[in-house]
Amino acid sequence: MMTIGIIYGGTREGNTEMLAHYAVQELAAEKIYLRDYSIHSIVDQRHILGGFQNIGDDYNSIIDRILQHDILIFVTPIYWYSMSGTMKNFIDRWSQSLRDTNYSNFKASMSAKKAFVIAVGGDNPYVKGLPLIQQFQHIFDFMGMSFDGYVLGEGNKPGDIRQDEAAILAAQQLNNKLKAYEG
Amino acid sequence: MMTIGIIYGGTREGNTEMLAHYAVQELAAEKIYLRDYSIHSIVDQRHILGGFQNIGDDYNSIIDRILQHDILIFVTPIYWYSMSGTMKNFIDRWSQSLRDTNYSNFKASMSAKKAFVIAVGGDNPYVKGLPLIQQFQHIFDFMGMSFDGYVLGEGNKPGDIRQDEAAILAAQQLNNKLKAYEG
Amino acid sequence: MMTIGIIYGGTREGNTEMLAHYAVQELAAEKIYLRDYSIHSIVDQRHILGGFQNIGDDYNSIIDRILQHDILIFVTPIYWYSMSGTMKNFIDRWSQSLRDTNYSNFKASMSAKKAFVIAVGGDNPYVKGLPLIQQFQHIFDFMGMSFDGYVLGEGNKPGDIRQDEAAILAAQQLNNKLKAYEG
Amino acid sequence: MMTIGIIYGGTREGNTEMLAHYAVQELAAEKIYLRDYSIHSIVDQRHILGGFQNIGDDYNSIIDRILQHDILIFVTPIYWYSMSGTMKNFIDRWSQSLRDTNYSNFKASMSAKKAFVIAVGGDNPYVKGLPLIQQFQHIFDFMGMSFDGYVLGEGNKPGDIRQDEAAILAAQQLNNKLKAYEG
Repeated sequence: MMTIGIIYGGTREGNTEMLAHYAVQELAAEKIYLRDYSIHSIVDQRHILGGFQNIGDDYNSIIDRILQHDILIFVTPIYWYSMSGTMKNFIDRWSQSLRDTNYSNFKASMSAKKAFVIAVGGDNPYVKGLPLIQQFQHIFDFMGMSFDGYVLGEGNKPGDIRQDEAAILAAQQLNNKLKAYEG
Repeated sequence: MMTIGIIYGGTREGNTEMLAHYAVQELAAEKIYLRDYSIHSIVDQRHILGGFQNIGDDYNSIIDRILQHDILIFVTPIYWYSMSGTMKNFIDRWSQSLRDTNYSNFKASMSAKKAFVIAVGGDNPYVKGLPLIQQFQHIFDFMGMSFDGYVLGEGNKPGDIRQDEAAILAAQQLNNKLKAYEG
Repeated sequence: MMTIGIIYGGTREGNTEMLAHYAVQELAAEKIYLRDYSIHSIVDQRHILGGFQNIGDDYNSIIDRILQHDILIFVTPIYWYSMSGTMKNFIDRWSQSLRDTNYSNFKASMSAKKAFVIAVGGDNPYVKGLPLIQQFQHIFDFMGMSFDGYVLGEGNKPGDIRQDEAAILAAQQLNNKLKAYEG
Repeated sequence: MMTIGIIYGGTREGNTEMLAHYAVQELAAEKIYLRDYSIHSIVDQRHILGGFQNIGDDYNSIIDRILQHDILIFVTPIYWYSMSGTMKNFIDRWSQSLRDTNYSNFKASMSAKKAFVIAVGGDNPYVKGLPLIQQFQHIFDFMGMSFDGYVLGEGNKPGDIRQDEAAILAAQQLNNKLKAYEG
């Protein structure tokens, strides 16, 4: 049996979370809302003596939680044609975990996971959201993770996503797939 | 005569800034290092009563400075196949300025500007950096800005960029172009 | 009432046509199989005296047919991460129609049309097919056509597409949309 | 010492070949102009009894020639935001060579080669040409070839490319790199 962690990058309960709801309903997934935590921007200290300094924020506690799961779903509104800065800050910090001796198994552990992306935007996300999907592909490739699917949806005003029938169908389809994994 | 503002998204003086140096040398450009300022992640309040709340950080002061210039150069290391979270946070906040009555001229003013991008990455940036360029194109298109050029470079360890002769040549070429604009 | 033309770029009745079948069933669409016609590669004669020479192949007769319709669906297998050479040859020739005095209304007429794309590939088309979608977006933008949707599917051996439930659902969804247009 | 083969996909001596000239000058490269040969579109016969039929055109003779070289440069005008149909037809046929028992070493041999791309377009190729570059990356990845660089240039009317100083510099830079390979 596989377990699922969902990482939410939005700053409010909006269309993206509504779409994700269709994908994760009736799943025993652990939900992590990044907006509820303090995660500093990375300071690149790869090449200075002593390497990365310990940062006393919530980042490591979130890493601890996602490392428990077999499947990770990255849920982000499309802000300015990419993931939210909140989610980007979180992922930027992976550079630190990759060098953190307390997480020497970070890459190996991540590489065993399946990844999914759910993203909603207001400006033609089906085309203008594609660089975001390509960025995620490169991210997952680097980590050795398997990019097993994504759902794009369109919405601006709260609730808009309900009009995007194709997105909702795709999210429900993903839900079936995830249920099969969960066993 | 046109004036130039350079927005640095890196967290240290690294390869990206070194490459940018070739592009901006002998120019009277205003340099803005985002790492020197406090810029909060956006909280999407587009659709709540009262709209965006005023945030008491340094964001507006930077907007005030870039609005003065005719040419903006976005300089960012490629972190995880996109701009740094620091720069993303800055651009995410544009959504707020677009609705800020104190900046009612924001989009019109930005739309008159020329934009350039300089980005350096360590993992095949000439190909894996392309989604970042496409993302910037969408950003500039939305704002009505003219995307007049970009320079990609490769580097990991500090100083690596000096080995990327093609990038340095391209940066010098951009320098010539910018000098012509500056008059 | 809108009418629909479907342009097939495949060289055999394969997975792509099978997927397209779900999208166009019960529609009075005109089906055009490019493989049944002779269409020469373009010879770029934009800049020579006299311009493009008349080519005695089937190209113009196909243009005559697609110009009758309000909606065009481009159906192509993904060969080497883009449309088939057969379909590319067809589209390359549009450069000729744009300068053909017998088709002085070509661009204006095309710009009034809605466009859809259906494409099936065997090597992770959901990610590696995205440059193809971006190419089509640029093509439609240039012509002023409205890119109203696409369906990607995965399949290698004949019939594989039947296992791609997400693609079939998306094609059925498109079918509903097209029926609404047909009135 | 490495040898170089250049594959030209254009239909006339235009800006693309002019730009390529800067990259290949003073090199003992073998030049192959696809327009001088008859290369049929592929007919997908992967899954029928007997597989691909022998096609009596010039395709195999060109494969024989490129297999001799260590470095391949693909030179194509950007037609409709991708490679010319002429070049696409050539590459589509690789699917046949991959199954041709007379070329059982095709993929292994290709995988040892370095690849470069030179492409010129008239409509913002520095951004709208990027899906083409991404497509080539996928092609080379599939074949196991090393994608070692590309040069994009802008031009419409014959000779325009001479105004694109950045492209010419990049081509000259590539020329230096290739000379070093040639030893």
